[in-house]
Amino acid sequence: MSEPLSRRLLAEALGTAFLLATVVGSGIMGAKLAGGNIALALLGNTLPTGAVLVVLILIFGPVSGAHFNPAVTLGFALKRTFPWKEAGLYAGAQILGAVIGVWTAHLMFELPLWQLSVTARTGSGQWLAEFIATFGLLLTIFGCVARAPMAVPHAVGLYITAAYWFTASTSFANPAVTIARALSNTFAGIAPADAPGFILAQAAGMLAAVLLQSVVWPAKRASA
Amino acid sequence: MSEPLSRRLLAEALGTAFLLATVVGSGIMGAKLAGGNIALALLGNTLPTGAVLVVLILIFGPVSGAHFNPAVTLGFALKRTFPWKEAGLYAGAQILGAVIGVWTAHLMFELPLWQLSVTARTGSGQWLAEFIATFGLLLTIFGCVARAPMAVPHAVGLYITAAYWFTASTSFANPAVTIARALSNTFAGIAPADAPGFILAQAAGMLAAVLLQSVVWPAKRASA
Amino acid sequence: MSEPLSRRLLAEALGTAFLLATVVGSGIMGAKLAGGNIALALLGNTLPTGAVLVVLILIFGPVSGAHFNPAVTLGFALKRTFPWKEAGLYAGAQILGAVIGVWTAHLMFELPLWQLSVTARTGSGQWLAEFIATFGLLLTIFGCVARAPMAVPHAVGLYITAAYWFTASTSFANPAVTIARALSNTFAGIAPADAPGFILAQAAGMLAAVLLQSVVWPAKRASA
Amino acid sequence: MSEPLSRRLLAEALGTAFLLATVVGSGIMGAKLAGGNIALALLGNTLPTGAVLVVLILIFGPVSGAHFNPAVTLGFALKRTFPWKEAGLYAGAQILGAVIGVWTAHLMFELPLWQLSVTARTGSGQWLAEFIATFGLLLTIFGCVARAPMAVPHAVGLYITAAYWFTASTSFANPAVTIARALSNTFAGIAPADAPGFILAQAAGMLAAVLLQSVVWPAKRASA
Repeated sequence: MSEPLSRRLLAEALGTAFLLATVVGSGIMGAKLAGGNIALALLGNTLPTGAVLVVLILIFGPVSGAHFNPAVTLGFALKRTFPWKEAGLYAGAQILGAVIGVWTAHLMFELPLWQLSVTARTGSGQWLAEFIATFGLLLTIFGCVARAPMAVPHAVGLYITAAYWFTASTSFANPAVTIARALSNTFAGIAPADAPGFILAQAAGMLAAVLLQSVVWPAKRASA
Repeated sequence: MSEPLSRRLLAEALGTAFLLATVVGSGIMGAKLAGGNIALALLGNTLPTGAVLVVLILIFGPVSGAHFNPAVTLGFALKRTFPWKEAGLYAGAQILGAVIGVWTAHLMFELPLWQLSVTARTGSGQWLAEFIATFGLLLTIFGCVARAPMAVPHAVGLYITAAYWFTASTSFANPAVTIARALSNTFAGIAPADAPGFILAQAAGMLAAVLLQSVVWPAKRASA
Repeated sequence: MSEPLSRRLLAEALGTAFLLATVVGSGIMGAKLAGGNIALALLGNTLPTGAVLVVLILIFGPVSGAHFNPAVTLGFALKRTFPWKEAGLYAGAQILGAVIGVWTAHLMFELPLWQLSVTARTGSGQWLAEFIATFGLLLTIFGCVARAPMAVPHAVGLYITAAYWFTASTSFANPAVTIARALSNTFAGIAPADAPGFILAQAAGMLAAVLLQSVVWPAKRASA
Repeated sequence: MSEPLSRRLLAEALGTAFLLATVVGSGIMGAKLAGGNIALALLGNTLPTGAVLVVLILIFGPVSGAHFNPAVTLGFALKRTFPWKEAGLYAGAQILGAVIGVWTAHLMFELPLWQLSVTARTGSGQWLAEFIATFGLLLTIFGCVARAPMAVPHAVGLYITAAYWFTASTSFANPAVTIARALSNTFAGIAPADAPGFILAQAAGMLAAVLLQSVVWPAKRASA
């Protein structure tokens, strides 16, 4: 990764902003058009999120690695493939970008900029869902990086497409996303009081993935 | 396949667990949100299943071959490209993983862990559907392995996406999946008494594919 | 194309059978589950058809070229990249496979084997739609073969996914498909009396594409 | 780009015609079949548009660059990777093709050829949406061209799939598309009086992307 740090932070902020504009914007659009059918609204939220992730990782991956997610940055740092000293800056750029993305969605749909969600998302099922969602996301990334690095963009897009539906929490799987979605009282929101539980579960899922990946894809081989 | 057996069994169990968590979890989510429209529920079940299969085969394929399916393991053994003595262990790991996946889905959605399905799935149309579904799945795998091995992950994901809709049984096509889905009284379930009929039809479809592939893609050429 | 003719004819028949089982089977499933919403039924018909086309072209393409369509075979013959003397046999295998595919769908859904459609599909708009649908399909194939041959499977699957919705006829674009769908009084059917009009329009679209491709992608360069 | 100018203009016109036939045709089909559910109609408009873009860029990209969009042509001219003296001809071919595409859709669905839309699309939210939509589209193209040129077709198709849902305007992001959609009083239309506002916002988004891309993907490296 030979790009200067400032360019990488810009890429992380910009990519995470587009990601959140998509998550929140398509959530608003889906809920608005679906006539009360939540499955259709979630479909209108899922397809854009999966699609934009492929694009964002394709174009920003070669610049910053396209983490867009403090859990991913921390996971790479724990694997010692990302410098610890830059992890805090990456997380800051991601959170800043995420909030800008949410606000951009609000402006596009002519909603108040500043909002706090009142959507409760809590309980053991939701926390297990966030653990599983983040565990699977990190395994997807680590597994591709280890054996098929060119596949990361599509694999992450497809994984999130699946995880929106198979996890009971619709898969936030990202602390920056969780914080930013607390600032939107729309389809994709989460009550601020419920955010810490999600983030803790995400951290646990990330740690489990870091441990497991060293067993499943040990570093001995360079790659195929 | 130079990976140690224990690592390969772990990959088979883990991959099959994620596959079943997706099949059963997205079935629960789809049925819950679709407001009684079964086409929408099946759509919310189809997209995640197809998407997660691509991901799981991408990341676990280089480790264990990513069978996740005793019919696939047996098919390769009959083709003599997988050792017979490991086939039973593979099937055991797949069934174990499948059951863990179903139970994980139940826990995420805060449903009882132990369930038995009461959904009847039987009759000549259903059995023909499982024969065709498994026949087509194995042809997809054998055809790609013979001529375009890099395409296996996407081809299997796309095939199952199609087979959920074109087969009258929504395409189980997998004995481990069939057993595990008997343990879930949700959208994706199958009554335990109907499981053996499905498994027999799957075995017949697998045998037909093994016979046919030697005619369509004979082993003479190494690959394209 | 070094494969023996008998193997190629088997691949054309088998591939076209799976294609029609998907078109007709997913049409039946979609109509059955969609609760009267035709857009949902068409969605449940579109996704499987596009997905299975990618798979079938991937696995049978290296064997027979994966035409599955007399208009494609004839188009290649007119371009002199397929032998005229085999074109009739290809078309015969495609039509035979298509009928077997339709009947397999009927058997899976426990419907009468022998049916004749009563769905009227006629008029200038429908004929223009079939002209455009076939014109675009052939341009997709010729354009990929000329400049990006590895992309044919995905391009054809994506083109048909689009054409199901943007053409007024839902894009048959294939004489063998048209004949076989006349034999199914289900969602995907076409009244036998309306089939000749569709086939003539398809032939005209094919001829237009053969003429145009020589201007847009002349044969001077070997490929990229 | 060694192709003669006439062939490139033909490719631009033909590709933009298919793009608009798809946008307007699938909009008509979706609205007709969706039974009043706008989310379903938009889904039936989104999938075909994203799919056909991949195909059109695959087959016409090697001929003309597959811009299909005056904002893209102008963006490349500003980057000095497209000759200024040809930009006007490209834009003319794109607008001509776009109008032909709209009229073809009208003929297929047996609607009056000549129409003017009465759908109001105006206001700060819509203009911001068009700014963001075009900004993101150009970043997608510039980012892929800089680091992963083979990914352009899929990336553009996926980006537009997302942008149909996450932008409040459903993402026109293209002046030729905007002009042509003013000529269709159907699902995809825009009142002619509102077109200039959209086109100005698109121009601003294009300029922002040209400025930003030189920072994020500077030209120093040849490519990966």
